[in-house]
Amino acid sequence: MNFCSQCGARVAQRIPPGDHLPRFVCDSCGTIHYQNPRIVVGCVPEHEGRILICKRAIEPRLGFWTVPAGFMENGETLQQGAARESQEEALAEVEIGSLLALVSVVHAHQVHVFFRAKLPTPIFGAGPESLEVKLVTPQEIPWDDIAFLSTWFALERYLEDRAAGRDEHHFVTLDRRPAGGNPAGK
Amino acid sequence: MNFCSQCGARVAQRIPPGDHLPRFVCDSCGTIHYQNPRIVVGCVPEHEGRILICKRAIEPRLGFWTVPAGFMENGETLQQGAARESQEEALAEVEIGSLLALVSVVHAHQVHVFFRAKLPTPIFGAGPESLEVKLVTPQEIPWDDIAFLSTWFALERYLEDRAAGRDEHHFVTLDRRPAGGNPAGK
Repeated sequence: MNFCSQCGARVAQRIPPGDHLPRFVCDSCGTIHYQNPRIVVGCVPEHEGRILICKRAIEPRLGFWTVPAGFMENGETLQQGAARESQEEALAEVEIGSLLALVSVVHAHQVHVFFRAKLPTPIFGAGPESLEVKLVTPQEIPWDDIAFLSTWFALERYLEDRAAGRDEHHFVTLDRRPAGGNPAGK
Repeated sequence: MNFCSQCGARVAQRIPPGDHLPRFVCDSCGTIHYQNPRIVVGCVPEHEGRILICKRAIEPRLGFWTVPAGFMENGETLQQGAARESQEEALAEVEIGSLLALVSVVHAHQVHVFFRAKLPTPIFGAGPESLEVKLVTPQEIPWDDIAFLSTWFALERYLEDRAAGRDEHHFVTLDRRPAGGNPAGK
Protein backbone atom coordinates (compact mmCIF):
# COMPACT_ATOMS: atom_id res chain seq x y z
CA MET A 1 0.00 0.00 0.00
CA ASN A 2 1.47 3.33 -1.13
CA PHE A 3 -1.49 5.72 -1.39
CA CYS A 4 -4.61 6.50 0.61
CA SER A 5 -7.64 4.94 -1.09
CA GLN A 6 -9.82 7.71 0.34
CA CYS A 7 -7.95 10.88 -0.66
CA GLY A 8 -5.04 9.71 -2.87
CA ALA A 9 -2.25 11.11 -0.67
CA ARG A 10 0.84 9.04 0.21
CA VAL A 11 0.46 6.85 3.30
CA ALA A 12 3.05 6.17 5.99
CA GLN A 13 3.42 3.00 8.04
CA ARG A 14 3.47 3.54 11.80
CA ILE A 15 1.71 2.61 15.04
CA PRO A 16 -1.28 4.93 15.58
CA PRO A 17 -1.89 6.35 19.10
CA GLY A 18 -3.58 3.74 21.31
CA ASP A 19 -2.76 0.92 18.88
CA HIS A 20 -0.06 -1.75 19.17
CA LEU A 21 0.61 -2.66 15.53
CA PRO A 22 1.94 -0.66 12.58
CA ARG A 23 -0.77 0.46 10.18
CA PHE A 24 -0.85 2.40 6.93
CA VAL A 25 -1.88 5.89 8.01
CA CYS A 26 -2.87 8.87 5.85
CA ASP A 27 -1.62 12.15 7.32
CA SER A 28 -3.69 14.11 4.83
CA CYS A 29 -7.21 12.86 5.64
CA GLY A 30 -6.49 10.86 8.82
CA THR A 31 -7.71 7.48 7.56
CA ILE A 32 -6.09 4.43 9.13
CA HIS A 33 -6.00 1.52 6.66
CA TYR A 34 -6.32 -1.75 8.56
CA GLN A 35 -5.31 -5.00 6.89
CA ASN A 36 -6.93 -8.15 8.23
CA PRO A 37 -7.02 -11.85 7.39
CA ARG A 38 -9.25 -12.97 4.55
CA ILE A 39 -11.56 -15.96 4.63
CA VAL A 40 -11.33 -18.83 2.17
CA VAL A 41 -14.48 -21.01 2.12
CA GLY A 42 -14.65 -24.45 0.61
CA CYS A 43 -16.17 -27.89 0.89
CA VAL A 44 -15.53 -31.57 0.31
CA PRO A 45 -18.41 -32.65 -1.98
CA GLU A 46 -19.27 -36.35 -1.97
CA HIS A 47 -21.38 -38.37 -4.39
CA GLU A 48 -21.98 -42.05 -3.57
CA GLY A 49 -18.67 -42.41 -1.75
CA ARG A 50 -16.59 -40.49 -4.25
CA ILE A 51 -15.08 -37.01 -3.75
CA LEU A 52 -15.24 -34.13 -6.22
CA ILE A 53 -11.83 -32.59 -6.89
CA CYS A 54 -10.65 -29.83 -9.24
CA LYS A 55 -7.37 -29.32 -11.09
CA ARG A 56 -6.41 -25.66 -10.85
CA ALA A 57 -6.27 -23.60 -14.06
CA ILE A 58 -4.89 -20.56 -12.23
CA GLU A 59 -1.94 -19.64 -10.06
CA PRO A 60 -0.97 -20.27 -7.37
CA ARG A 61 -0.47 -24.03 -7.75
CA LEU A 62 -1.69 -24.23 -11.34
CA GLY A 63 -2.08 -27.88 -12.37
CA PHE A 64 -2.46 -29.12 -8.79
CA TRP A 65 -5.63 -30.62 -7.32
CA THR A 66 -7.93 -29.10 -4.76
CA VAL A 67 -11.51 -29.16 -3.52
CA PRO A 68 -13.85 -26.29 -4.46
CA ALA A 69 -12.74 -23.27 -2.37
CA GLY A 70 -12.08 -19.58 -2.73
CA PHE A 71 -12.31 -16.16 -1.13
CA MET A 72 -15.55 -15.42 0.67
CA GLU A 73 -17.39 -12.44 -0.82
CA ASN A 74 -19.22 -9.60 0.91
CA GLY A 75 -22.95 -10.24 1.12
CA GLU A 76 -22.90 -14.00 1.61
CA THR A 77 -22.77 -16.47 4.49
CA LEU A 78 -19.96 -18.98 4.97
CA GLN A 79 -22.17 -21.74 3.59
CA GLN A 80 -23.34 -19.68 0.62
CA GLY A 81 -19.72 -18.91 -0.21
CA ALA A 82 -18.75 -22.58 -0.13
CA ALA A 83 -21.71 -23.48 -2.39
CA ARG A 84 -20.88 -20.64 -4.80
CA GLU A 85 -17.28 -21.78 -5.13
CA SER A 86 -18.50 -25.29 -6.03
CA GLN A 87 -20.70 -23.76 -8.71
CA GLU A 88 -17.92 -21.59 -10.12
CA GLU A 89 -15.04 -24.04 -10.03
CA ALA A 90 -16.84 -27.34 -10.61
CA LEU A 91 -20.21 -26.29 -12.10
CA ALA A 92 -21.69 -28.37 -9.29
CA GLU A 93 -24.81 -27.78 -7.19
CA VAL A 94 -23.85 -29.01 -3.73
CA GLU A 95 -25.70 -29.19 -0.41
CA ILE A 96 -23.49 -27.80 2.31
CA GLY A 97 -23.36 -29.92 5.47
CA SER A 98 -21.49 -29.80 8.76
CA LEU A 99 -18.34 -27.90 9.62
CA LEU A 100 -15.21 -29.92 8.80
CA ALA A 101 -12.16 -27.74 9.41
CA LEU A 102 -10.99 -24.30 10.54
CA VAL A 103 -7.45 -23.61 9.36
CA SER A 104 -5.51 -20.54 10.47
CA VAL A 105 -3.05 -19.97 7.61
CA VAL A 106 -0.96 -17.47 9.50
CA HIS A 107 1.73 -16.69 6.91
CA ALA A 108 -0.88 -16.03 4.21
CA HIS A 109 -3.13 -13.89 6.44
CA GLN A 110 -6.03 -16.24 5.78
CA VAL A 111 -8.52 -18.43 7.60
CA HIS A 112 -9.79 -21.41 5.62
CA VAL A 113 -13.22 -22.80 6.49
CA PHE A 114 -14.22 -26.19 5.05
CA PHE A 115 -17.61 -27.90 5.17
CA ARG A 116 -18.75 -31.39 4.34
CA ALA A 117 -21.08 -31.38 1.32
CA LYS A 118 -23.28 -33.66 -0.75
CA LEU A 119 -23.41 -33.67 -4.55
CA PRO A 120 -26.91 -35.14 -5.06
CA THR A 121 -26.58 -35.61 -8.82
CA PRO A 122 -23.21 -36.27 -10.49
CA ILE A 123 -23.44 -33.27 -12.80
CA PHE A 124 -20.26 -31.18 -12.87
CA GLY A 125 -17.62 -29.76 -15.16
CA ALA A 126 -14.57 -27.52 -15.32
CA GLY A 127 -15.36 -23.89 -14.54
CA PRO A 128 -13.07 -21.11 -15.81
CA GLU A 129 -10.64 -21.61 -12.91
CA SER A 130 -10.37 -25.39 -13.36
CA LEU A 131 -8.58 -27.51 -15.99
CA GLU A 132 -10.41 -30.69 -15.02
CA VAL A 133 -12.98 -31.80 -12.44
CA LYS A 134 -13.63 -35.41 -11.46
CA LEU A 135 -15.09 -37.73 -8.85
CA VAL A 136 -12.48 -39.94 -7.20
CA THR A 137 -12.52 -42.75 -4.68
CA PRO A 138 -10.39 -42.21 -1.58
CA GLN A 139 -7.76 -44.51 -3.13
CA GLU A 140 -7.62 -42.37 -6.26
CA ILE A 141 -6.92 -39.05 -4.49
CA PRO A 142 -3.65 -37.65 -5.93
CA TRP A 143 -2.05 -36.91 -2.55
CA ASP A 144 1.29 -35.94 -4.09
CA ASP A 145 -0.37 -33.34 -6.30
CA ILE A 146 -2.69 -31.63 -3.80
CA ALA A 147 -2.47 -27.85 -4.17
CA PHE A 148 -2.51 -26.64 -0.57
CA LEU A 149 -1.77 -27.98 2.90
CA SER A 150 -5.23 -26.92 4.05
CA THR A 151 -6.82 -29.00 1.25
CA TRP A 152 -4.75 -31.98 2.36
CA PHE A 153 -5.80 -31.48 5.96
CA ALA A 154 -9.49 -31.19 5.04
CA LEU A 155 -9.44 -34.30 2.85
CA GLU A 156 -7.59 -36.38 5.44
CA ARG A 157 -9.91 -35.41 8.27
CA TYR A 158 -12.95 -35.92 6.05
CA LEU A 159 -11.97 -39.48 5.18
CA GLU A 160 -10.88 -40.36 8.72
CA ASP A 161 -14.15 -39.10 10.17
CA ARG A 162 -16.21 -40.82 7.50
CA ALA A 163 -14.44 -44.13 8.18
CA ALA A 164 -15.04 -43.71 11.92
CA GLY A 165 -18.65 -42.55 11.51
CA ARG A 166 -17.82 -39.18 13.11
CA ASP A 167 -19.05 -35.71 12.21
CA GLU A 168 -16.53 -33.50 13.99
CA HIS A 169 -14.69 -30.28 13.23
CA HIS A 170 -10.94 -29.83 13.33
CA PHE A 171 -8.50 -26.99 13.91
CA VAL A 172 -5.01 -26.63 12.58
CA THR A 173 -2.49 -23.82 12.31
CA LEU A 174 -0.30 -23.55 9.22
CA ASP A 175 2.57 -21.12 9.63
CA ARG A 176 5.44 -20.83 7.19
CA ARG A 177 6.70 -17.47 8.35
CA PRO A 178 10.51 -17.33 8.14
CA ALA A 179 11.19 -16.53 11.82
CA GLY A 180 9.55 -18.12 14.83
CA GLY A 181 7.15 -20.07 12.70
CA ASN A 182 5.20 -23.05 13.87
CA PRO A 183 5.03 -25.44 10.91
CA ALA A 184 2.09 -27.75 11.23
CA GLY A 185 0.16 -30.17 9.11
CA LYS A 186 2.12 -31.82 6.32
CA MET B 1 -12.64 3.68 -2.18
CA ASN B 2 -11.71 6.53 -4.51
CA PHE B 3 -8.02 6.04 -5.33
CA CYS B 4 -5.71 3.11 -6.12
CA SER B 5 -3.62 2.26 -3.06
CA GLN B 6 -0.85 1.03 -5.36
CA CYS B 7 -0.36 3.94 -7.79
CA GLY B 8 -2.63 6.74 -6.50
CA ALA B 9 -4.79 7.04 -9.66
CA ARG B 10 -8.59 7.23 -9.47
CA VAL B 11 -10.37 3.88 -9.43
CA ALA B 12 -13.59 2.92 -11.22
CA GLN B 13 -16.17 0.40 -10.06
CA ARG B 14 -17.05 -2.29 -12.62
CA ILE B 15 -17.10 -6.03 -13.22
CA PRO B 16 -13.65 -7.16 -14.41
CA PRO B 17 -13.47 -9.70 -17.31
CA GLY B 18 -14.14 -13.21 -16.04
CA ASP B 19 -15.56 -11.94 -12.75
CA HIS B 20 -19.20 -11.70 -11.67
CA LEU B 21 -19.14 -8.90 -9.10
CA PRO B 22 -18.29 -5.20 -9.38
CA ARG B 23 -14.80 -4.37 -8.05
CA PHE B 24 -12.75 -1.23 -7.66
CA VAL B 25 -10.41 -1.35 -10.67
CA CYS B 26 -7.41 0.87 -11.43
CA ASP B 27 -7.12 1.59 -15.16
CA SER B 28 -3.72 3.13 -14.63
CA CYS B 29 -1.80 0.20 -13.09
CA GLY B 30 -4.38 -2.58 -13.58
CA THR B 31 -4.79 -3.48 -9.91
CA ILE B 32 -8.16 -4.95 -8.92
CA HIS B 33 -9.03 -4.06 -5.32
CA TYR B 34 -11.08 -6.88 -3.78
CA GLN B 35 -13.10 -6.24 -0.64
CA ASN B 36 -13.86 -9.26 1.50
CA PRO B 37 -15.51 -9.97 4.85
CA ARG B 38 -13.48 -9.39 7.98
CA ILE B 39 -13.25 -11.76 10.93
CA VAL B 40 -14.21 -10.78 14.47
CA VAL B 41 -12.85 -13.19 17.10
CA GLY B 42 -14.08 -13.37 20.65
CA CYS B 43 -14.77 -15.62 23.59
CA VAL B 44 -17.06 -16.17 26.55
CA PRO B 45 -14.67 -16.33 29.53
CA GLU B 46 -15.92 -18.13 32.63
CA HIS B 47 -14.60 -18.11 36.17
CA GLU B 48 -16.31 -20.39 38.70
CA GLY B 49 -19.67 -20.16 36.94
CA ARG B 50 -19.58 -16.45 36.28
CA ILE B 51 -19.09 -14.79 32.88
CA LEU B 52 -16.69 -11.93 32.12
CA ILE B 53 -18.39 -9.07 30.29
CA CYS B 54 -17.17 -5.64 29.15
CA LYS B 55 -18.95 -2.30 28.83
CA ARG B 56 -17.86 -0.68 25.58
CA ALA B 57 -15.92 2.62 25.77
CA ILE B 58 -15.96 3.05 21.99
CA GLU B 59 -18.46 3.28 19.18
CA PRO B 60 -20.35 1.47 17.84
CA ARG B 61 -22.62 0.70 20.82
CA LEU B 62 -20.70 2.75 23.37
CA GLY B 63 -22.01 2.01 26.87
CA PHE B 64 -23.45 -1.38 25.93
CA TRP B 65 -22.15 -4.73 27.16
CA THR B 66 -20.27 -7.38 25.23
CA VAL B 67 -17.85 -10.23 25.67
CA PRO B 68 -14.19 -9.70 24.70
CA ALA B 69 -14.08 -9.65 20.87
CA GLY B 70 -12.55 -7.67 18.03
CA PHE B 71 -11.04 -7.79 14.57
CA MET B 72 -8.61 -10.64 13.95
CA GLU B 73 -5.14 -9.38 13.04
CA ASN B 74 -2.70 -10.63 10.42
CA GLY B 75 -0.13 -13.01 11.92
CA GLU B 76 -2.30 -14.73 14.51
CA THR B 77 -4.58 -17.76 14.73
CA LEU B 78 -8.27 -17.54 15.56
CA GLN B 79 -7.56 -18.65 19.11
CA GLN B 80 -4.65 -16.25 19.56
CA GLY B 81 -6.88 -13.43 18.35
CA ALA B 82 -9.62 -14.30 20.84
CA ALA B 83 -7.08 -14.44 23.69
CA ARG B 84 -5.50 -11.13 22.62
CA GLU B 85 -8.87 -9.38 22.63
CA SER B 86 -9.50 -10.60 26.19
CA GLN B 87 -6.14 -9.17 27.19
CA GLU B 88 -6.78 -5.83 25.49
CA GLU B 89 -10.41 -5.26 26.46
CA ALA B 90 -10.54 -6.95 29.87
CA LEU B 91 -6.86 -7.21 30.92
CA ALA B 92 -7.62 -10.91 31.37
CA GLU B 93 -5.46 -13.95 30.65
CA VAL B 94 -7.89 -16.56 29.36
CA GLU B 95 -7.50 -20.13 28.17
CA ILE B 96 -9.35 -20.54 24.89
CA GLY B 97 -11.49 -23.68 24.69
CA SER B 98 -13.90 -25.17 22.19
CA LEU B 99 -15.66 -23.48 19.29
CA LEU B 100 -18.96 -21.94 20.38
CA ALA B 101 -20.42 -20.01 17.43
CA LEU B 102 -19.86 -19.01 13.82
CA VAL B 103 -21.95 -15.99 12.88
CA SER B 104 -22.20 -14.69 9.31
CA VAL B 105 -23.01 -11.00 9.78
CA VAL B 106 -23.92 -10.44 6.14
CA HIS B 107 -24.89 -6.76 6.24
CA ALA B 108 -21.67 -5.81 8.02
CA HIS B 109 -19.40 -7.93 5.78
CA GLN B 110 -18.14 -9.80 8.83
CA VAL B 111 -17.86 -13.31 10.24
CA HIS B 112 -17.83 -13.54 14.04
CA VAL B 113 -16.10 -16.54 15.63
CA PHE B 114 -16.67 -17.18 19.35
CA PHE B 115 -14.90 -19.68 21.60
CA ARG B 116 -15.60 -20.90 25.08
CA ALA B 117 -12.85 -19.81 27.49
CA LYS B 118 -11.68 -20.20 31.06
CA LEU B 119 -10.46 -17.37 33.27
CA PRO B 120 -8.31 -19.35 35.71
CA THR B 121 -7.70 -16.46 38.11
CA PRO B 122 -10.23 -13.64 38.57
CA ILE B 123 -7.78 -10.91 37.63
CA PHE B 124 -9.17 -8.41 35.14
CA GLY B 125 -9.86 -4.74 34.53
CA ALA B 126 -11.04 -2.20 32.00
CA GLY B 127 -8.71 -1.91 28.99
CA PRO B 128 -8.68 1.29 26.89
CA GLU B 129 -11.75 0.16 24.91
CA SER B 130 -13.82 -0.70 28.00
CA LEU B 131 -15.58 1.47 30.57
CA GLU B 132 -16.09 -1.38 33.02
CA VAL B 133 -15.40 -5.11 33.19
CA LYS B 134 -17.09 -7.51 35.59
CA LEU B 135 -17.92 -11.13 36.35
CA VAL B 136 -21.65 -11.83 36.32
CA THR B 137 -23.87 -14.79 37.07
CA PRO B 138 -26.22 -15.84 34.25
CA GLN B 139 -29.05 -14.10 36.12
CA GLU B 140 -27.08 -10.84 36.20
CA ILE B 141 -26.41 -10.64 32.44
CA PRO B 142 -27.84 -7.30 31.21
CA TRP B 143 -29.73 -8.79 28.25
CA ASP B 144 -31.41 -5.48 27.37
CA ASP B 145 -28.05 -3.74 27.12
CA ILE B 146 -26.06 -6.26 25.09
CA ALA B 147 -24.12 -4.50 22.32
CA PHE B 148 -24.53 -6.85 19.37
CA LEU B 149 -26.87 -9.62 18.20
CA SER B 150 -23.88 -11.94 17.78
CA THR B 151 -22.89 -11.38 21.42
CA TRP B 152 -26.44 -12.19 22.49
CA PHE B 153 -26.43 -15.35 20.35
CA ALA B 154 -23.06 -16.49 21.75
CA LEU B 155 -24.10 -15.89 25.37
CA GLU B 156 -27.45 -17.67 24.96
CA ARG B 157 -25.91 -20.71 23.27
CA TYR B 158 -23.13 -20.78 25.87
CA LEU B 159 -25.54 -20.89 28.79
CA GLU B 160 -27.92 -23.37 27.14
CA ASP B 161 -25.07 -25.75 26.32
CA ARG B 162 -23.57 -25.41 29.77
CA ALA B 163 -26.91 -26.21 31.40
CA ALA B 164 -27.32 -29.24 29.13
CA GLY B 165 -23.72 -30.40 29.55
CA ARG B 166 -23.08 -29.98 25.82
CA ASP B 167 -20.00 -28.68 24.05
CA GLU B 168 -21.36 -27.92 20.57
CA HIS B 169 -20.89 -25.19 17.99
CA HIS B 170 -23.67 -23.13 16.46
CA PHE B 171 -24.26 -21.24 13.21
CA VAL B 172 -26.44 -18.26 12.65
CA THR B 173 -26.90 -15.71 9.88
CA LEU B 174 -27.59 -12.09 10.78
CA ASP B 175 -28.70 -10.01 7.83
CA ARG B 176 -30.12 -6.51 8.13
CA ARG B 177 -29.70 -5.51 4.51
CA PRO B 178 -32.60 -3.32 3.38
CA ALA B 179 -33.79 -5.54 0.49
CA GLY B 180 -34.19 -9.28 0.52
CA GLY B 181 -32.71 -9.57 3.96
CA ASN B 182 -33.09 -12.60 6.16
CA PRO B 183 -33.33 -11.30 9.72
CA ALA B 184 -32.32 -13.94 12.19
CA GLY B 185 -31.45 -14.21 15.83
CA LYS B 186 -32.96 -11.60 18.11
